[in-house]
Amino acid sequence: MDHKEQILLNIEQKKIHLGIIGLGYVGLPLAVTFAGEGVSVTGFDNSAERVWAVNSGSNYISDIDDELFSELVQSGKLNASDNFGGLNNCDAIIICVPTPLDRFKKPDTSYIENACSEIARYMKPGTFICLESTTYPTTTEDLILPLIENESGLKHGSEFWLAFSPERVDPGNKLYNTQNTPKIIGALTPDGLEIGEAVYGIAIENIHPVSSPRVAEMVKILENTYRLVNISMINEMALLCGKMDIDIWEVIEAAGTKPFGFQAFSPGPGIGGHCIPLDPFYLEYIAKKYNFDLSMIHTAGHIDMMMPHRMTIKINSALNRVKKPVNGSNILFLGVAYKPNINDARESPALKIIDEVEAKGGKVSYHDPFIPEVVTSNGLTLSSVELNESTLKKNDCVVITTNHDVFDPGFILKHSALIVDLRNLIKEKSEKVYKL
Amino acid sequence: MDHKEQILLNIEQKKIHLGIIGLGYVGLPLAVTFAGEGVSVTGFDNSAERVWAVNSGSNYISDIDDELFSELVQSGKLNASDNFGGLNNCDAIIICVPTPLDRFKKPDTSYIENACSEIARYMKPGTFICLESTTYPTTTEDLILPLIENESGLKHGSEFWLAFSPERVDPGNKLYNTQNTPKIIGALTPDGLEIGEAVYGIAIENIHPVSSPRVAEMVKILENTYRLVNISMINEMALLCGKMDIDIWEVIEAAGTKPFGFQAFSPGPGIGGHCIPLDPFYLEYIAKKYNFDLSMIHTAGHIDMMMPHRMTIKINSALNRVKKPVNGSNILFLGVAYKPNINDARESPALKIIDEVEAKGGKVSYHDPFIPEVVTSNGLTLSSVELNESTLKKNDCVVITTNHDVFDPGFILKHSALIVDLRNLIKEKSEKVYKL
Repeated sequence: MDHKEQILLNIEQKKIHLGIIGLGYVGLPLAVTFAGEGVSVTGFDNSAERVWAVNSGSNYISDIDDELFSELVQSGKLNASDNFGGLNNCDAIIICVPTPLDRFKKPDTSYIENACSEIARYMKPGTFICLESTTYPTTTEDLILPLIENESGLKHGSEFWLAFSPERVDPGNKLYNTQNTPKIIGALTPDGLEIGEAVYGIAIENIHPVSSPRVAEMVKILENTYRLVNISMINEMALLCGKMDIDIWEVIEAAGTKPFGFQAFSPGPGIGGHCIPLDPFYLEYIAKKYNFDLSMIHTAGHIDMMMPHRMTIKINSALNRVKKPVNGSNILFLGVAYKPNINDARESPALKIIDEVEAKGGKVSYHDPFIPEVVTSNGLTLSSVELNESTLKKNDCVVITTNHDVFDPGFILKHSALIVDLRNLIKEKSEKVYKL
Repeated sequence: MDHKEQILLNIEQKKIHLGIIGLGYVGLPLAVTFAGEGVSVTGFDNSAERVWAVNSGSNYISDIDDELFSELVQSGKLNASDNFGGLNNCDAIIICVPTPLDRFKKPDTSYIENACSEIARYMKPGTFICLESTTYPTTTEDLILPLIENESGLKHGSEFWLAFSPERVDPGNKLYNTQNTPKIIGALTPDGLEIGEAVYGIAIENIHPVSSPRVAEMVKILENTYRLVNISMINEMALLCGKMDIDIWEVIEAAGTKPFGFQAFSPGPGIGGHCIPLDPFYLEYIAKKYNFDLSMIHTAGHIDMMMPHRMTIKINSALNRVKKPVNGSNILFLGVAYKPNINDARESPALKIIDEVEAKGGKVSYHDPFIPEVVTSNGLTLSSVELNESTLKKNDCVVITTNHDVFDPGFILKHSALIVDLRNLIKEKSEKVYKL
């Protein structure tokens, strides 16, 4: 029996051992989904804290059910390790590591490369490897394949198989999770695709195979470029509407009545999170190699980059109306998460605005029910203050940066002297409210 | 009884006489929809040909049912005139005239202004006036209101009312028509809005009032800017994918499996028709007055403008593969309509490509089952040739510019030597096919 027949048989009998590298908001839900289907899963992560949390049955990702999580750990189906030597026991390995941009907005593929080096060092012949981290098209073929072949000495196509399958995790989405979101997969060879479909087929309802890893890589970037471009477009429109005395929120609501050919996006203080502000710039980076300028992504990035500064100007204008300067005023920010009802402040525009207002002499503070402490890019460390009547009253300006469902618009409106509402939280008309 | 009470009573009893200025793809369906609900309608148009056609019961808009049309004309509910003096008998007047761009892509509001001058000359006190033509926000308030007041001597708010309600006609849409597409309306005063809602309420199922004409004007431009931006974005992606050996159509199909946060757009040779290539530039124009640069629309326009040229290069590359130059080659274009299954070639990118290929010495011809003859911007007049085996065979290159449903991909593939498929009509893999 050759390696392919062996792994397909093991998959059929659910006897494979699955390794997942990276136990963040993508890897951990994926590990739980597989373990929940009876597969034995080991998660690998350099963070001793995460490894300890998993092994003690203590869930740290809000989209995962706590009870199911501790059950899977107790039953031995799910465990974690920071010792990558354990990859040697895995039949299939899925990579779910970050692909950030550096401070100059260039792709940083070092997490992927490190993960692949660990795989190359430890994997046994006959292993299926799949990358889920968002990256530019050609990464799997041109970066990972030679790296693993060279460092492992194993031959792709007979001794291991490589594929790309983009994660589509949408934190906080109540309807679509890892299991019921269709999964794109593209492999380097037909065998690799067959094995990849079989592996993911154990745990995921719907698999959509494509003809190559680069197509699969492009799919994910298209999805998020669509979001970047549309959010940027509506943000630019919102700024114009502010000048033309048009309520952009009313416009969007009305446009939303068109029953075909329109999808509504909401403006806001800028784009945050780990996908939309990053993924399109991976594509812009590789496009240069093809002597190609992605003007749409470039323009969207330009709009997005200036949004926090434009929001600072709005705060300035609002305070100016009541004859106050930013310098020396008390300014409270409500919400630092990058979107409502989650506890994630990565790339959050709120932090950029806080930095800029603080640099101009504003006395900044924030409240976020889900994020007790933040550190801004400027190194400012803040703790969430309590949201009550006296906090609202003692601030010269209250800025709504995230529209968490728990925020009570009536309460905030009643007790605040001046509000800059960047999320259309306050629906009631009021002289005190200055809207995006 | 004052003017307002009078008109509301007339509406309630369906005793109003409605005038519609402009009997094109917006005005005529609207006239038919109102007449079908028992309102007596007169359509006004400068074209003697259209007026004659309507009065002889001969329908020329494909989305209108021929039988219903001739029935309404015969019953006297619907008639047409090129004598604007008849506006004097109208209780309500709706303006559905073109708002094109001139050759330098600047808004041409002369049709609106002329219509308003005719209204001002003839209307009786107590008339409700509504503009449906797409235009930049503030047109109704800043251009039309003073024009009508000055020229008529009547006072807005008591002697006439003005509103804006954008048309949302989607030619060829089988599901949504004038009657069942929700209608946005914004008026200058609460009375005007009340009357406007009552007028449209006679014939249209769902009315969505907004707070001002400028909001209503912006709604329509947002809807079409969304389309311009997304089509331009996917066109740019398609060009990059061509360089990266990625099938953009496969990418889009796969991205379409994402069940949230994505809407698929198809690439193509450029944007055509009377809305998407025009409307956003109305906004760009007025934005300058507010010292505001709409970079997203600007970039989208840039991509759109270069698409026909890029498609000419694709034709060149395809011919070059088989060692032929454009100069002297026979090149057949399939489809000149700007979108499938309609008979409208306005702003069609096919015509721009034909012009450019012809200027480079290509011997151009076309087939379109719905458009027997075209005149290009360069003044080239062409008649549709028959689509058969010998036509396909005698051409060096067949370019698919519109994906009409009646085109048979198998037949075209079988008999053509070389195909440049700009619409993904040919799904079968073939060496002969060069895709966008």
